Amino acid sequence: MEEFKVTVEGSGKHVHLSREHLDILFGKGFELEPKKYLSQPGQYASTSKVDIVGPKGTISGMSVLGPARKETQVELSFTDARKVGFEPPIRLSGDLEGSPGCTIIGPKGTVTIDKGVIVAKRHLHCSPEDGAKYGVKDGDVVKIKVGGERGLVFDNVECRVGPTHATFVHVDYDEINAAALFGDTTGIVLKD
Amino acid sequence: MEEFKVTVEGSGKHVHLSREHLDILFGKGFELEPKKYLSQPGQYASTSKVDIVGPKGTISGMSVLGPARKETQVELSFTDARKVGFEPPIRLSGDLEGSPGCTIIGPKGTVTIDKGVIVAKRHLHCSPEDGAKYGVKDGDVVKIKVGGERGLVFDNVECRVGPTHATFVHVDYDEINAAALFGDTTGIVLKD
Repeated sequence: MEEFKVTVEGSGKHVHLSREHLDILFGKGFELEPKKYLSQPGQYASTSKVDIVGPKGTISGMSVLGPARKETQVELSFTDARKVGFEPPIRLSGDLEGSPGCTIIGPKGTVTIDKGVIVAKRHLHCSPEDGAKYGVKDGDVVKIKVGGERGLVFDNVECRVGPTHATFVHVDYDEINAAALFGDTTGIVLKD
Repeated sequence: MEEFKVTVEGSGKHVHLSREHLDILFGKGFELEPKKYLSQPGQYASTSKVDIVGPKGTISGMSVLGPARKETQVELSFTDARKVGFEPPIRLSGDLEGSPGCTIIGPKGTVTIDKGVIVAKRHLHCSPEDGAKYGVKDGDVVKIKVGGERGLVFDNVECRVGPTHATFVHVDYDEINAAALFGDTTGIVLKD
């Protein structure tokens, strides 16, 4: 693998909903309305929000991302999660086995899921073109260095390479704050 | 410098108060009562708490550490700081020039300081014995590696070596969460 520069993005806490759960929470046939398109093709923050009930409290007004997913999933930072009593595992999106469940409250109904609350595992989204150019394969694990006063090197960054990916690193806000990535958010994928 | 193992500790948000400000906030001659001694010799979390007023909100019940310091200082994580509108610099304890001020509310009075709100810079406290043993000098800047699912290498860790220091790394809770340092909190100071 070659060394190359990437932009590091912070993902705030958010929810992905299945079609079935969208129907229950917002009403039959409800369609999410894109508020802001995100870096990954077709993905957007919607205008809709839900509340998430944890063992020790509720997180109100969590952003619902679209489009609908196969499975409902709640992504929190450890800061958010621990405040309301969750002890989530660190997982890539969609890897939900054994994660805690929760209750989700929408304007038209309530859903209780028995798994789906995770802390996102750091990952590098990578387009097939950049994958070929830099020698990154789907499933590779890389190190990413960021500079500045709180410079650090993230180990264990998993790579997701494919046509649905644009090349960006995703971390959560605990990681953004730990690295003080507020201005220049350039990272360097380190050479093997 | 030799490679060696250290324990990484998370510092929660806290306040250090000057003698003058202790008098105003808690009453003339008030003495802090140790609740729990910390890893650094003579330092303790006291039973006393204060509220800190920021530009956009108040942080209630902040722990006051003892003993009294030369200057009053408020240490927050970026998560805490941004929630109430502070934009603090990343500083070592005592380096307060140019940092934002705030209002501190105690049970007997209120103090407004014109500087003192900081986010703690990662640092390695080091005893003179360990400094001599491993080749660490006061002011050195080292890298510290931690393992696990969210393993990373902290760059820019400043060393404070002297008789008032016991050998521990101090980071804040954004950094603890970013590294998922909840179980084994051992770090390795990397060889130069």
